[in-house]
Amino acid sequence: MTERLVVIGGDAAGMSAASQARRLKGPDELEIVAFERGHFSSFSACGIPYWVGGRVQDCSELIARTPAEHRERAIDLRMRTEVTAIDVAGGRVRSRDLESGAEEWTGYDKLVIATGARPVRPPLPGIDAPGVHGVQSLDDGQALLDSLVALEGGGRAVVVGAGYIGVEMAEALLDRGLEVTVLNRGAQPMVTLDPDMGRLVHEAMDGLGITTVNNTEVTAVLTGSDGRVRAVATGDAEYPADVVVLGMGVEPETALAEAAGLPLGSYGGLLTDLSMRVRGRENIWAGGDCVEVLDLVSGRERYVPLGTHANKHGQVIGANAGGGYGTFPGVVGTAVSKVCDLEIARTGLRERDAAEVGLQYVTATVESTNRAGYYPDSALMTVKMIAERRTGRLLGVQIVGREGAAKRVDIAAVALTAGMTVERMTALDLGYAPPFSPVWDPVLVAARKAVAKVRAEG
Amino acid sequence: MTERLVVIGGDAAGMSAASQARRLKGPDELEIVAFERGHFSSFSACGIPYWVGGRVQDCSELIARTPAEHRERAIDLRMRTEVTAIDVAGGRVRSRDLESGAEEWTGYDKLVIATGARPVRPPLPGIDAPGVHGVQSLDDGQALLDSLVALEGGGRAVVVGAGYIGVEMAEALLDRGLEVTVLNRGAQPMVTLDPDMGRLVHEAMDGLGITTVNNTEVTAVLTGSDGRVRAVATGDAEYPADVVVLGMGVEPETALAEAAGLPLGSYGGLLTDLSMRVRGRENIWAGGDCVEVLDLVSGRERYVPLGTHANKHGQVIGANAGGGYGTFPGVVGTAVSKVCDLEIARTGLRERDAAEVGLQYVTATVESTNRAGYYPDSALMTVKMIAERRTGRLLGVQIVGREGAAKRVDIAAVALTAGMTVERMTALDLGYAPPFSPVWDPVLVAARKAVAKVRAEG
Repeated sequence: MTERLVVIGGDAAGMSAASQARRLKGPDELEIVAFERGHFSSFSACGIPYWVGGRVQDCSELIARTPAEHRERAIDLRMRTEVTAIDVAGGRVRSRDLESGAEEWTGYDKLVIATGARPVRPPLPGIDAPGVHGVQSLDDGQALLDSLVALEGGGRAVVVGAGYIGVEMAEALLDRGLEVTVLNRGAQPMVTLDPDMGRLVHEAMDGLGITTVNNTEVTAVLTGSDGRVRAVATGDAEYPADVVVLGMGVEPETALAEAAGLPLGSYGGLLTDLSMRVRGRENIWAGGDCVEVLDLVSGRERYVPLGTHANKHGQVIGANAGGGYGTFPGVVGTAVSKVCDLEIARTGLRERDAAEVGLQYVTATVESTNRAGYYPDSALMTVKMIAERRTGRLLGVQIVGREGAAKRVDIAAVALTAGMTVERMTALDLGYAPPFSPVWDPVLVAARKAVAKVRAEG
Repeated sequence: MTERLVVIGGDAAGMSAASQARRLKGPDELEIVAFERGHFSSFSACGIPYWVGGRVQDCSELIARTPAEHRERAIDLRMRTEVTAIDVAGGRVRSRDLESGAEEWTGYDKLVIATGARPVRPPLPGIDAPGVHGVQSLDDGQALLDSLVALEGGGRAVVVGAGYIGVEMAEALLDRGLEVTVLNRGAQPMVTLDPDMGRLVHEAMDGLGITTVNNTEVTAVLTGSDGRVRAVATGDAEYPADVVVLGMGVEPETALAEAAGLPLGSYGGLLTDLSMRVRGRENIWAGGDCVEVLDLVSGRERYVPLGTHANKHGQVIGANAGGGYGTFPGVVGTAVSKVCDLEIARTGLRERDAAEVGLQYVTATVESTNRAGYYPDSALMTVKMIAERRTGRLLGVQIVGREGAAKRVDIAAVALTAGMTVERMTALDLGYAPPFSPVWDPVLVAARKAVAKVRAEG
């Protein structure tokens, strides 16, 4: 008997799951139907800033696999088709063809929910005015590019939000020749870092000619007589804008799941077990930006919407839905980004995260170089390390600096996964040669200082 | 009562030990006397290729701390003074002032042996002719530079040996405008890699215009009527040479220790315990290029002369000799290097190492990119992963490729230290953003393939 696997969402998690399940089971054993409400499948949302900035020429490069390619692998991917309800008791989903309006029910034996995330878009006056852009989908990116073309390489941009999306879009708009102002609700850019490290990002953005306004709340988008955006208003100022980009983060898209009575966590994401099965459900899996994930350092569920996790989730779901076996053990919270040549990385807990889960800690911050100090073009980076008091267990690392700063955080990501102490880290056998590292890698220098702090605090 | 710590060798291990001991104990408690037979203290031998190649302008940049700086910290560093005997029973060392010839005995309460390594220099006809250069010391580097200046930016160089020193010197000589031929005894360059990965280095060297001759043994250095080198002879050919660089590796400099009856391992290096104390001796420590180290992957002692280990040894020795506590747990065998823009990295066991210690294994080799494929200037790297059969424990990783290849090996170095399986590695939370990695980091792609191999081989 042929089973039917239904996938809701045609992006990273959903289509990875579908592809992996197809590798394990042929069409005679498993029928796969996938629904995607948008125009594109399996695209890299993370690449949008580089397309908008002009480094990536054509958005087709951001598409890992087209609908036609999926269909060639016997995956019945229905584009522009929105799932409007999940009937868990009946084992079926209701969908609407967004072109024709036609609706129908499709039964499933196994279901994958990969509905992704939606951008935060506060209901402010003017927020839907022409010239105000999200950057979640390729359609969003194209609309923004159209706005920029109309500005002919000049103009003023306001970016609302100073997280990853905000700083990456600030770079993209700068690359397009605009004057860029970033309006930030927090005390420093990059709330995913501690404020002392966020300040380094702020200073670097200043140096790049990006104006960052902290501690400010947008109250309205102001429009001109043509109805287009002309400025962004905060409590106490107005910032002229020819174009506005919203980079205020995303929330899990779980309205369907909630309506179906599936379990959501405190961030609004679906809760799954280690096999990515929705808790309490035998035949429903969920992954990608619509789920919460276990944070291995704090032992708490967190919301970490990242393409790299979505792909891993998809692999695990596909293995399990295809009759194999796989688990996703959790994350340690690694993220890297850049704004122009400034690299920004973090993994594990920030100070506030540690405090929130009852961990006492010490911090150690050091400045070092990516290469031997005497090697040409050696560049600075600041490494902050957080370790548990007494035990010395590594809790988190943040790195801000130039070339070579971002991916150095991987050392700490693996050490966190292994539950290493900072003492053990001081003896890590890391690659050394003058073009690649000082004789003590910056991460080791931070670990040595953290060891001294742990000892001193007792 | 003031104790006396005597240090033999004024480079990384010895002077790190002296400095760390001084931090813990002042001159009223601990007198520190250090002997160095050369002209320089605490210099970066690893930096010599970049000084010879012209990237580092002045050899003073390679000196981390001058003799005067050490003396300011109350370390009685005696330069150009060679220790000629260790009298373990009497607790004293005999030294000779190389300028005056004066000899004397110096008593010690604690002794640190940091005599380093000596370059392999086979007793071939002509090997001591003018124009034949080692690259172990700053004096060596200066002599080579003098030879190059006389050639006025042209000429032919032969490098004997295709390990780290050989390929780094090939780059340096190419940078100086010479035609470079590398004569290699092995089947492929970089014997620290498996031959399949060494072949990639060979191909890249070809592409750079470096001629590499494998499977060849140098039989003589031929000289002209002026007594200077004119060619290098192998069994079946002659290679014209205006300058010859010897890069055949190094051996532990342990003649003194051997004469004193201290325990040596199968590579001729001193054997220590985890606190870097010479085995069976209460008050003698040894570190740096004159010791063997525990390889944590194979459980065997190996000879891994690297500045990064020497510095760590020095810290540990200084802590213990200064009345504190420290250990050096061992290495996993990480090393990185480059030849022009080709990056070369390895950690853990090669295939032959695994076989030698009775481990059965699978290998997985993948090609991937340092950035998202669509991001500009994304560059290829080849990752080879070796995992134990059945258990799937990671045994080793080798990476050859362009920008971003070398330091990626740190991920594997930490995973090896933690004893991770390749299955666990597939879920590692590594930094992802398009400028820094594909959505599956190359190391994860290799891990996934290794998992499949482990399963398939059973």
